[in-house]
Amino acid sequence: MHALQFTAESSSNGVRERDFTVGDVPGVLWSPVPGDDPAPLVLMGHGGGSHKKHRSMAGRARLLVTGCGFHVAVIDAPGHGDRPRTALDEQDIAALRTAQAAGEPESPIVVPYNARLAQLAVPEWQATLDALQDRPEIGADGPVGYLGIGLGTAIGLPLVAVEPRITAAVFGLMWPDALVEAAKQITVPVEFALQWDDERIPREDALALFDAFASKEKTLHANAGKHIDFPRFEADSAVRFLARHLGRAVASTA
Amino acid sequence: MHALQFTAESSSNGVRERDFTVGDVPGVLWSPVPGDDPAPLVLMGHGGGSHKKHRSMAGRARLLVTGCGFHVAVIDAPGHGDRPRTALDEQDIAALRTAQAAGEPESPIVVPYNARLAQLAVPEWQATLDALQDRPEIGADGPVGYLGIGLGTAIGLPLVAVEPRITAAVFGLMWPDALVEAAKQITVPVEFALQWDDERIPREDALALFDAFASKEKTLHANAGKHIDFPRFEADSAVRFLARHLGRAVASTA
Repeated sequence: MHALQFTAESSSNGVRERDFTVGDVPGVLWSPVPGDDPAPLVLMGHGGGSHKKHRSMAGRARLLVTGCGFHVAVIDAPGHGDRPRTALDEQDIAALRTAQAAGEPESPIVVPYNARLAQLAVPEWQATLDALQDRPEIGADGPVGYLGIGLGTAIGLPLVAVEPRITAAVFGLMWPDALVEAAKQITVPVEFALQWDDERIPREDALALFDAFASKEKTLHANAGKHIDFPRFEADSAVRFLARHLGRAVASTA
Repeated sequence: MHALQFTAESSSNGVRERDFTVGDVPGVLWSPVPGDDPAPLVLMGHGGGSHKKHRSMAGRARLLVTGCGFHVAVIDAPGHGDRPRTALDEQDIAALRTAQAAGEPESPIVVPYNARLAQLAVPEWQATLDALQDRPEIGADGPVGYLGIGLGTAIGLPLVAVEPRITAAVFGLMWPDALVEAAKQITVPVEFALQWDDERIPREDALALFDAFASKEKTLHANAGKHIDFPRFEADSAVRFLARHLGRAVASTA
């Protein structure tokens, strides 16, 4: 197994940010300052075409670190962020741009593309979790949650299906095609988001994916608006959901 | 118009509770202590067979008063709480109990029964709101929200459809039959709750009612479980929704 190697460190406004690698996978770990006592860990998956330090990741991490005292880790998905793209990545991305420009359906491209990334990323996440749990401020026995929308769901949903260390998860905004069978294996509490007027993911498909989770506690949040209108208050909701299930109070929400 | 008459008063743990009447309709007003400055008002509708001071009402009121500094008013629905039942009420309730005991569908009884109560209650609520807004600690210009589930939706939804003073509303757990046309008139932000495995209200019917709201901002919260399993954390969510739209921060949520 690969150990976690820190490559850079900074701090601002009560959040410690450490870049790391596990093998050749680059990641970032955000932690409370001070933060020597073991605290719950949230793994976050970034969206398609995005990266580990996108502001949507940094913003959610700040809420989780300063609001709940959690650690938050994000790794770059294959072909994203600081990771090289393969010829296959370039092909898939080019095909996606062509379909989008032509106004053709994306799902025939996005679904297999993201499923391929998930096959690579699930073992990467598991190795990263092994390495993170070797850190004394995280530890092997603490609660672990997952939060990821879009590509973060395409990767995170099969991860949670096979990873018993993750005990609560937030997903959303993804086609069900490659995910329904994995969803049927998930029994931990789930919060799932969809856009009621999503022009890319049909409503019935998104409802079917929510329906597939075997979780006794699952909550659907459906908001009016198109795919891009996904509201910012769902980030606050995800934080409260994770705080409830990973066992910390939220210090302050507005 | 009838003025608001206070009939009893008490205080505990930062919440002032005043019983009142407007005409022959009894109500309760919960307020912050101290609470002389004008603050937003939330109208709450209780559930079927319940009353204005049921613990679900008192609990939500405490969250809104101590968490947000809001005033909260509840009135007894016709034939509920301290109000007399008519012969028609007795007939409807007896028919409902017979259907429930026989395991027959409730909606053919509940829907027209609750629609009849709504016809009576909407003008009662409007007169109550008039009288409440005459109070200096509420005032005629402050924001007004509505929160009611079950019968509280059967009454509140047609109220919000005709009452422009109400600018945000939380509804849920009610059949659409008598409400879809009113929902199409509603344009203010709405949070709507349903139970994903509701054995009384078909899922498709509840989704259709959410779909009917004309609101640009509307959020559906669907939770796994049967009708009775409606989770307590939805009360916290309703408080945050109202705080967001009526313009106050939530002091503390856990």
